[in-house]
Amino acid sequence: MVITRELALRTRGNGHALDLTAQVAEMVRDSGLQSGLATIFCPGSTGALTTIEYEDGALADLGRALEEIAPAGREYRHHLRWGDDNGHAHVRAALVGPSLTVPFVDGRLALGTWQQIVFLDFDTQPRNRRLVVQVIGE
Amino acid sequence: MVITRELALRTRGNGHALDLTAQVAEMVRDSGLQSGLATIFCPGSTGALTTIEYEDGALADLGRALEEIAPAGREYRHHLRWGDDNGHAHVRAALVGPSLTVPFVDGRLALGTWQQIVFLDFDTQPRNRRLVVQVIGE
Amino acid sequence: MVITRELALRTRGNGHALDLTAQVAEMVRDSGLQSGLATIFCPGSTGALTTIEYEDGALADLGRALEEIAPAGREYRHHLRWGDDNGHAHVRAALVGPSLTVPFVDGRLALGTWQQIVFLDFDTQPRNRRLVVQVIGE
Repeated sequence: MVITRELALRTRGNGHALDLTAQVAEMVRDSGLQSGLATIFCPGSTGALTTIEYEDGALADLGRALEEIAPAGREYRHHLRWGDDNGHAHVRAALVGPSLTVPFVDGRLALGTWQQIVFLDFDTQPRNRRLVVQVIGE
Repeated sequence: MVITRELALRTRGNGHALDLTAQVAEMVRDSGLQSGLATIFCPGSTGALTTIEYEDGALADLGRALEEIAPAGREYRHHLRWGDDNGHAHVRAALVGPSLTVPFVDGRLALGTWQQIVFLDFDTQPRNRRLVVQVIGE
Repeated sequence: MVITRELALRTRGNGHALDLTAQVAEMVRDSGLQSGLATIFCPGSTGALTTIEYEDGALADLGRALEEIAPAGREYRHHLRWGDDNGHAHVRAALVGPSLTVPFVDGRLALGTWQQIVFLDFDTQPRNRRLVVQVIGE
């Protein structure tokens, strides 16, 4: 059995990290399924999904590492194509990845206590995002 | 319902990025399934999967970031074992990851307009690759 | 059909890499399922999953790259919150990711010959971990 929902988000961009745990957990609960996989996917190449302890310190530390890997102020060849300013966002999103899969058991996500599902919006301006959440199971 | 196919590719190695979107989309369409997950997997530890806007600039930007994370010209302890020259390829592949999962809805992949499925071959020579594409759904 | 198991591990932390391939392969075999997805998930925000050639050299090379991306000896804002010393572990885990999905076909994981499933424990002390392994298929 497969259930798909869209999750509409308003983000601030620039690395804004949103905690989606409660919404995904609720969708699993509402599905009535007992065990299976919840997949969260970002349709778009400047956002990414992972898990982290959702507190300001850890989020800032992750942001610093990504700023060092792909600094925002640098020249990117992607800019030459479109006159864009978000080359770093594309690089960061491709490295972190657009997809996250979390198993659930007895109707509950198998997350740790200090582990949250986060969407990272690397784009350079506020955006309305529509993520896809899909639950497969029995 | 589960459908598995192999996807045979000829790559140039050295970070060659191949756009697999059309082939995966066609496989989903041919499956007749309406909703579920498409998983693309690289059997091998020097290739990886992600999504990115498939245009030369963004691909070059990603390549630069990966070259900085794991430079090709550096010494790697992996080389000492086999006399290999692809230590950087192993590191890059482990970081980006061998697997990508994309949901589909109404028989269509939930990708953004400017977002493509890419296989990155980090190995140091041209290779014939056989990726695994698996569609699960209903 | 969905089958879920816990995998209990004793790790040394500090980037300890454990090869889970045999245990996941056995679970797929025992499931009696022919094709589908095996998902390995770390409940906790300081561990991660990927694949790599499981030999000391490649593992050390990956460890060096991660040490450069998020050095262990550095200041992290996460430390200010809890008096913790594992800020680098959170950053590394979020980048590599908590989840790995590997297809299986004819009851066998679609891994390459020199490719193993590895759990990386980035935390700063030995830990008992309980990973979730879930097999979905038919």
